[in-house]
Amino acid sequence: MPGSSAYRVCVIGLGAMGMGAAKSCVRAGLRTSGIELNPERRAELLAAGAVAAAASAGELPDCDFDGVVVLVVNGLQVRDALFGANGIARRLKPGTAVMVSSTQSADDAKAIGRDLEALGLLALDAPVSGGPVKAAAGEMTVMASGGKAAFDALRPVLDATASKVYEIGAEIGLGATVKIIHQLLAGVHIAAGAEAMALAARAGIPLDLMYDVVTHAAGNSWMFENRMKHVVDGDYAPKSAVNIFVKDLGLVTETGRALKFPLPLASTAFSMFLSAANAGHGNEDDAAVIKTFAGITLPGQEQA
Amino acid sequence: MPGSSAYRVCVIGLGAMGMGAAKSCVRAGLRTSGIELNPERRAELLAAGAVAAAASAGELPDCDFDGVVVLVVNGLQVRDALFGANGIARRLKPGTAVMVSSTQSADDAKAIGRDLEALGLLALDAPVSGGPVKAAAGEMTVMASGGKAAFDALRPVLDATASKVYEIGAEIGLGATVKIIHQLLAGVHIAAGAEAMALAARAGIPLDLMYDVVTHAAGNSWMFENRMKHVVDGDYAPKSAVNIFVKDLGLVTETGRALKFPLPLASTAFSMFLSAANAGHGNEDDAAVIKTFAGITLPGQEQA
Repeated sequence: MPGSSAYRVCVIGLGAMGMGAAKSCVRAGLRTSGIELNPERRAELLAAGAVAAAASAGELPDCDFDGVVVLVVNGLQVRDALFGANGIARRLKPGTAVMVSSTQSADDAKAIGRDLEALGLLALDAPVSGGPVKAAAGEMTVMASGGKAAFDALRPVLDATASKVYEIGAEIGLGATVKIIHQLLAGVHIAAGAEAMALAARAGIPLDLMYDVVTHAAGNSWMFENRMKHVVDGDYAPKSAVNIFVKDLGLVTETGRALKFPLPLASTAFSMFLSAANAGHGNEDDAAVIKTFAGITLPGQEQA
Repeated sequence: MPGSSAYRVCVIGLGAMGMGAAKSCVRAGLRTSGIELNPERRAELLAAGAVAAAASAGELPDCDFDGVVVLVVNGLQVRDALFGANGIARRLKPGTAVMVSSTQSADDAKAIGRDLEALGLLALDAPVSGGPVKAAAGEMTVMASGGKAAFDALRPVLDATASKVYEIGAEIGLGATVKIIHQLLAGVHIAAGAEAMALAARAGIPLDLMYDVVTHAAGNSWMFENRMKHVVDGDYAPKSAVNIFVKDLGLVTETGRALKFPLPLASTAFSMFLSAANAGHGNEDDAAVIKTFAGITLPGQEQA
């Protein structure tokens, strides 16, 4: 496919998700560039077949792209990557499509969308999920909103990086909102799993048995099955850190405030993750939210 | 199997779960009797091949059983079925094994166990899960604690009614606790699903799309997938009612109090189910907990 192989894409942010997305673009035959501060990650992408990699847009040979994917950590970094002193937005030719895939508030997504459109660029509000393994396989789930022109312009990138693309609507901000509501469930389920396993520990139920029962019954969740295994194993090496859910449940409660809508469970779970971070567990695996419960002994811990 | 076909079992309580368990016993060749107030349900069990069915133990031809299964609604009914004026316990020959499968508190389970043992009976604390469909198929999940003699004596019943038996320990009360912790997760997941779908409605996200995203992503739970379909369809005909979780999350908070253990999410979810019941939705499907959120329009509702 000469048309497809000539497609030029730039991925900004080569973290766990961005690196997977960028390599998936290379594998699909797109002319792929990357922007990333960490030189080792730039070298990794170049070794995988990217045509260019730089610490900022100004250091790239050119910014003649068909599509740009932004996969930095939060809304502040999105703004900086696009509109900061070394931002890419002003260097792009009009009509270039920019897919913003970081998790951010709907208000931030809307503001970014307006500023992109003011420069004649096409905006897609396109958060992703699936984790690093799915990203590496080119099988992310994308929940996207934006105009038809933006979807069309980014189709080769979506085809290369995602196994499932939800087209939520034309209005920028809907994609961000769907992702945030998804994170409400993910965060509450981790905290609920921790609460249940902590109660089991208190009641003298072996945690491996409790895990076995729940994962074979109607009380199971994707997060319980994935994260409470870490508790059973006493392994808090971060696959995804407590601080990520401090951020994401923060966005959830911010969304509730913006929509004047009560979120009793999400607010409670947010407090639990905040407590875990304040107790020094922010950079541990998010299953470490269980450590906010005192008076129990967990696998891998000495008697308290 | 002549030994197996001679096994005499009595199932007390022919509701959604008990009828399935009793019919599974008949199907497995056990000589099955039933105790149930509702005459239609007694007739249904007799038509299925039971040898006897009565409104109380005193009205049965005899109480010469090898095993008894109690599947009434709550701890109060368990006590009445066993030790009330027409209770079965004093009519059983010493050594008969009694499997108590209703969801009740660990303290109630322990008291029942002590009283059974005082009569020379064997006690198994054996709550079940899986729902009516699994019960009808003889594929319940049983989470049981008790002595080896009780497990051995009830093996033909367990084989007939369960596809999975978790042997949690010898101490009566552990089975009840595991079931209650399981219900903590089940109840919180229903309430969290309702909170997320309510927020989606508030934000203008089509609920069928939100359901589709979540059920294909890491935010999914067994309960979200099962119950939020009722919200998408606007169908609150009770598969399992709000009042069941008022009862079960009540047992959860009671367990937290007994163990002096904070349960922030379960307590919050309990309040949400209480609010739903107090607003008149107690006998609707438990997904109706979403109706506690004002200021939204749900599928099947007129504009509020």
